[in-house]
Amino acid sequence: MDGNEKALHNREAFQLERLILFTDAVFAIAITLLVIELKVPRLEHRTEHEATNALLRLIPEFIGFLISFFIIAIYWTADHRIFRFVRHLDGKLIWLNIVFLLSIVLMPFTTAYQSEYGMLATPWVLYSVNIIATGLLQARIQTYLRHPDNGIVAAHERHHPDLDLVRPLMTPLVLAVSILLAFFVNPWVLRGLPGIVFPLLGIYIGRRRQRLERIYNEQMAAEHA
Amino acid sequence: MDGNEKALHNREAFQLERLILFTDAVFAIAITLLVIELKVPRLEHRTEHEATNALLRLIPEFIGFLISFFIIAIYWTADHRIFRFVRHLDGKLIWLNIVFLLSIVLMPFTTAYQSEYGMLATPWVLYSVNIIATGLLQARIQTYLRHPDNGIVAAHERHHPDLDLVRPLMTPLVLAVSILLAFFVNPWVLRGLPGIVFPLLGIYIGRRRQRLERIYNEQMAAEHA
Amino acid sequence: MDGNEKALHNREAFQLERLILFTDAVFAIAITLLVIELKVPRLEHRTEHEATNALLRLIPEFIGFLISFFIIAIYWTADHRIFRFVRHLDGKLIWLNIVFLLSIVLMPFTTAYQSEYGMLATPWVLYSVNIIATGLLQARIQTYLRHPDNGIVAAHERHHPDLDLVRPLMTPLVLAVSILLAFFVNPWVLRGLPGIVFPLLGIYIGRRRQRLERIYNEQMAAEHA
Amino acid sequence: MDGNEKALHNREAFQLERLILFTDAVFAIAITLLVIELKVPRLEHRTEHEATNALLRLIPEFIGFLISFFIIAIYWTADHRIFRFVRHLDGKLIWLNIVFLLSIVLMPFTTAYQSEYGMLATPWVLYSVNIIATGLLQARIQTYLRHPDNGIVAAHERHHPDLDLVRPLMTPLVLAVSILLAFFVNPWVLRGLPGIVFPLLGIYIGRRRQRLERIYNEQMAAEHA
Repeated sequence: MDGNEKALHNREAFQLERLILFTDAVFAIAITLLVIELKVPRLEHRTEHEATNALLRLIPEFIGFLISFFIIAIYWTADHRIFRFVRHLDGKLIWLNIVFLLSIVLMPFTTAYQSEYGMLATPWVLYSVNIIATGLLQARIQTYLRHPDNGIVAAHERHHPDLDLVRPLMTPLVLAVSILLAFFVNPWVLRGLPGIVFPLLGIYIGRRRQRLERIYNEQMAAEHA
Repeated sequence: MDGNEKALHNREAFQLERLILFTDAVFAIAITLLVIELKVPRLEHRTEHEATNALLRLIPEFIGFLISFFIIAIYWTADHRIFRFVRHLDGKLIWLNIVFLLSIVLMPFTTAYQSEYGMLATPWVLYSVNIIATGLLQARIQTYLRHPDNGIVAAHERHHPDLDLVRPLMTPLVLAVSILLAFFVNPWVLRGLPGIVFPLLGIYIGRRRQRLERIYNEQMAAEHA
Repeated sequence: MDGNEKALHNREAFQLERLILFTDAVFAIAITLLVIELKVPRLEHRTEHEATNALLRLIPEFIGFLISFFIIAIYWTADHRIFRFVRHLDGKLIWLNIVFLLSIVLMPFTTAYQSEYGMLATPWVLYSVNIIATGLLQARIQTYLRHPDNGIVAAHERHHPDLDLVRPLMTPLVLAVSILLAFFVNPWVLRGLPGIVFPLLGIYIGRRRQRLERIYNEQMAAEHA
Repeated sequence: MDGNEKALHNREAFQLERLILFTDAVFAIAITLLVIELKVPRLEHRTEHEATNALLRLIPEFIGFLISFFIIAIYWTADHRIFRFVRHLDGKLIWLNIVFLLSIVLMPFTTAYQSEYGMLATPWVLYSVNIIATGLLQARIQTYLRHPDNGIVAAHERHHPDLDLVRPLMTPLVLAVSILLAFFVNPWVLRGLPGIVFPLLGIYIGRRRQRLERIYNEQMAAEHA
C-alpha cells in the first residue's frame, strides 16, 4: 500500500463515516423533536389542583412519546450494530439509507396524531404502518448488506448473528398484529401491549442471538482450523 | 514528512471535516424540520370517518413534503459526492458553501408555503426559485472546485465524471420549466410532473455518467502508459 | 497487532465515537430547543414602553431558560469528562446512555411548564424530578463504568477523581431539597436559590476534586515505584 | 512515544474534537431554527395577488433572517478559524465556549423579536446587545487562547494574524453604534446599514490581515534564520 492508496482508503472511510454521521444526526433530531409534541398545558385557573390534573390528562401523549422514543432508539441501535460491517459504500446503499431515514423523519408526525386521538383506530393504523415500513426498510438494508454480489460486507461476516433477519422483522410483526387489534380492543390495552410484548420478544431475541453466535463461532473456528 | 508537518496536515484535514460535518448537520436539520410543517389535523368530531378524511386532505402537504425531502436528499448526495475531491480549503469555498446552505435552510419555509396554497402559482414560483438557486449554487461550487488556479482538486481528478456540470443544472432546468407551466397547467399535474421527469432524467444522467466514466478511465490509462 | 486486528480496533473505536457523537447531537438539540419556549411577545400597541414591559414580563421565562441551559451544559460536561475513560462498549452501556438521553430530551418540556407557571409548586416538582432523574442516571452510568466486572474502564483509572460519585449526586440533592421548599417558600426565592447554592457547591466540589486528585496521583506513583 | 502515550494523545485529541463538534451542532441548529420564525403567511382570499402581497409584507422578517444568518455564519467561521490553534483543552475553555454558545442560542429569539417589531427601537437594542455579547465573548476566548500561561496555543502561533483581536471587536462596535442610531434614524436605514458597513469593514479587515500576515511571516523567518 503506497501513500496514494492509503489516502484513497482514508477518503472512502470518511465517505462512509459521513453517511453514518448524517444518519445519526437525523435520528438525533427526530428523537428530540418528539418532545415538541408534548405541549405545555394551558391552565385556566392557576391552581395546584389544575396543574396536577393537566399533567394527568397528558398521560396518553406521554405514553405515545415514550413508545416512539424507544422505537426510534431501537432502530438507532440496530443501525449502529449493522453498519459496523460495511466496508464499501455504493449509491444504492446511500439511497436505501435515505428512504429508511424518510420513515424515521415521519415518526414525530404519526406519533403526535396517534397520541392526540388515542381513542381512534385510524391514527394507530397510520402509526403502525410507519413503524412497519421502518422495520421492513431496515430488513431490506440488511439483505443488501448480506448479498455476496454487492461486496459490502466481508465474506466471513455475512452470517454474523447481528445481521440476522428475524430481529428487524419482529417489530413490524407486532405492529401488524396491533393493526388488527386496533378495531377490536380497548385503546389503553393496545398501548399497554408493547410494554408486555417487547420485553418477551427481547428474551426470545436474546436466546436466539446466543444460539446464532455459538453456531457462528463454531463455523469460524472450523474454517480457521 | 516530519512530525510537525504531519500534525499540520491532520489539522488541515480536520478543518475540512469540520466544514463538511457542519454542512451535514444543517442538511439533517433542514430535512427533518420539513415534518414540522405536516401539522396534526384538528378533528371536530372524533370519528374514524373524520380521522381518515383529515388524512386524505393532508395529501397535498404530504406530496410537498416528499418532493422537498428528496430534493434536499439529492443535494446532500451531490455534496457528499463532490466534496470527496477537496484537498485544500480556502475562505472562498467556505463562504460559497455557507450561501449554498442558506438556500437549503430556506427550503422548509418555501415548501410549507407551496404545500399550503397548492392551488396558487405564486408559492410554486417562490419554491422553484429556491430550488433553482440551490442548483446554481452547487454548480458554482463545482466550477470553483474544478478551476486549476484554485488548487482545490488534484489535477488528474478535475475531469472526474462526478464533477460534471450537467448534473447539478438538471434540477434547476426542470423547475424553470415548471415556473412557466405553473400559470397554465393544473396544480396537481404540476406536482405529478417531478415524479415522471426526475426518473427519466435519472436514466439520462446514468447513461451520461457511464460514458464520461469510460472516457475518464481511458484518459487515466493513457496518461499512466 | 496485524492489519486485521488494527482494522477491528479502529472499528470498535468508531462504534464508541458514534455513540458519543449521537449523544452530543441530542444534547445540542435539547439545549437549543430551550429557546423555542421563549416566545416572542405579542404587543397590542407598538410602543417602546410596551416593548420594554413585555421583555420585563419575560424575565421568569428567561430565568427558567438560563437554569435549564446551564443544567444541560453541566450534564454535557460530565458526559464529556467520564466517557473519555470508556475503552469498550457493550449493549448495556448503550441502553443506559439512551435512558439518560430520555431525561435530557424531556427537559425543554418540563422547563417550559415550570417557566410558564412559575407561581405554582406542581410544575417545579415535575421539573425537579426530571433533573433528579438525570443526575441519578448519570451516577448509574458511572457505577457501571467503574465496576471491575464490566471491563469498560482500565483498572488503574477506575478510581480517577473524574469518576467520583459525589459529584453527579449533588444536583439531585439540591433539587430534592427544592421540592420540599416549593411548598413553603416564595417561588422567586426558589428560583434564586440555584444561583447561590450551585456556586457554593462548585467550590466544595473543586476542593474535593483537588484532594481526590492528590490521593489518586500518590497511588499511581506508589504503584509505579 | 510509546503505545500508551499515543493512546492518551488520541484521547485528548478526541476530547477536543468532541467539544468542537458539539459547538458546530449548536451553531447548525441555531442557524437553521432562524427559518422557523419565517411564518407561512395566512391568506384570507386565495388569490395570486394576495399571495404576492403576503410575501412582500414578509420582507422585513426576511431581512432580519438574512442579517442573523450571516452574523451566525461569521461567528462560526471565526470559531472554525481560531480553534485550529488549540492544542490542549481545559475546563475554563470549555465553559467560556458554553457561555459563547448561550449567546448564539439566544439569537433566533432576539432576531424574531426585532424582525416582528421592526419599527421599534427596543427590540433592535436587545438584538444588538445579543450580538455585542457574542462578539465580546469571542474576543474573550481569543485572549484566553493567546495567554502564554494557559498553554493552549503553541508559542510561535500566539501572534498568528487569525488570533488578532481587532477582528472580533468590529461587529460589536458596529452594533453599539447602531444602538445609538436606533433612537434617531429610520428603521429601514438602520437595517440597510449592515449591508454597507460590513463590506467596507471586510475590506479594512482584509488589508489589516495581509499586513499582519506579512509581519508574522517575517518574524517566523527571522526566528528560523
